[in-house]
Amino acid sequence: MPGVTCDDRRVIENESAVEVDGEVFTVRAARPADLPELVAMLADDPLGSAREGAPPAAYEQAFAAIDADPRQLLAVLTAAGGAIVGTLQLTTIPGLSRGGALRGQIEAVRVHSGHRGRGLGSPFIRWAIDEARRRGCAIVQLTTDRSRVDAHRFYERLGFVDSHIGMKLDLRG
Amino acid sequence: MPGVTCDDRRVIENESAVEVDGEVFTVRAARPADLPELVAMLADDPLGSAREGAPPAAYEQAFAAIDADPRQLLAVLTAAGGAIVGTLQLTTIPGLSRGGALRGQIEAVRVHSGHRGRGLGSPFIRWAIDEARRRGCAIVQLTTDRSRVDAHRFYERLGFVDSHIGMKLDLRG
Repeated sequence: MPGVTCDDRRVIENESAVEVDGEVFTVRAARPADLPELVAMLADDPLGSAREGAPPAAYEQAFAAIDADPRQLLAVLTAAGGAIVGTLQLTTIPGLSRGGALRGQIEAVRVHSGHRGRGLGSPFIRWAIDEARRRGCAIVQLTTDRSRVDAHRFYERLGFVDSHIGMKLDLRG
Repeated sequence: MPGVTCDDRRVIENESAVEVDGEVFTVRAARPADLPELVAMLADDPLGSAREGAPPAAYEQAFAAIDADPRQLLAVLTAAGGAIVGTLQLTTIPGLSRGGALRGQIEAVRVHSGHRGRGLGSPFIRWAIDEARRRGCAIVQLTTDRSRVDAHRFYERLGFVDSHIGMKLDLRG
């Protein structure tokens, strides 16, 4: 995996160094103090801007639920000084199908608007794929909104196959 | 919700009566003794036939992981005499996005080949949607293989919106 220092990753669980153009970025599990920044990043997005804006307590409650569940990893990518430049959530899902395969599911991927176009996304997703493998997953899956055309090409370059249709039913609608 | 006896569902947690053409079917959580039948149903499918066939221990291990996790519900639909006629897995996933929405994800949906075409699928999925709502979900999501054209129409009739592209990366390939 290019640009990733594997040694660091084995020493510090859920933590990993990702090097991009000579700058070292670190992946770590999100902490409660990160929450306002994470919510701001989710909202700073063509689709997210219309979806976010719930009261802080809703996000705090969700963060606590994620944090308490060993099958959830809310990851943040940080620059050398500690600034958060990206986030994603990795969920492992046990299931019977595909020979009892454990699935790794990636949701809520964002790179901070001030850091887009620097090529941070690829090593960050490769880190997530590798973390899924370490957790025993046989498959990694994600869905992207049909309108995110650049994202489809991005994931295809990382080896993902566009094999499924993703359907949603909004229970609040 | 047509054809579903709501009272039963409230009395018995994870259990529900579904009536189809006067015949009563029951939804309950899967038990270890169901495992061989569930695996056979997963394999009895155009896509599943190529994917299943792992050693029994792989499925037993997966079943134990599902059973131990309160966010997983492996459901079986049974006929009056107890025969299993359908299965699906409902997973609840906490997350920050969409206002800290809890997601319900449906995977591994099967109706027994001897009972297809009887209209069992709709009340079974409606039960799963309702169970997701009871568990606090704000959204229900699933992916279906592009080749399952009938499935797409089926889920659209149930209110699902075909808004996303589902991408998979096989880590064993």
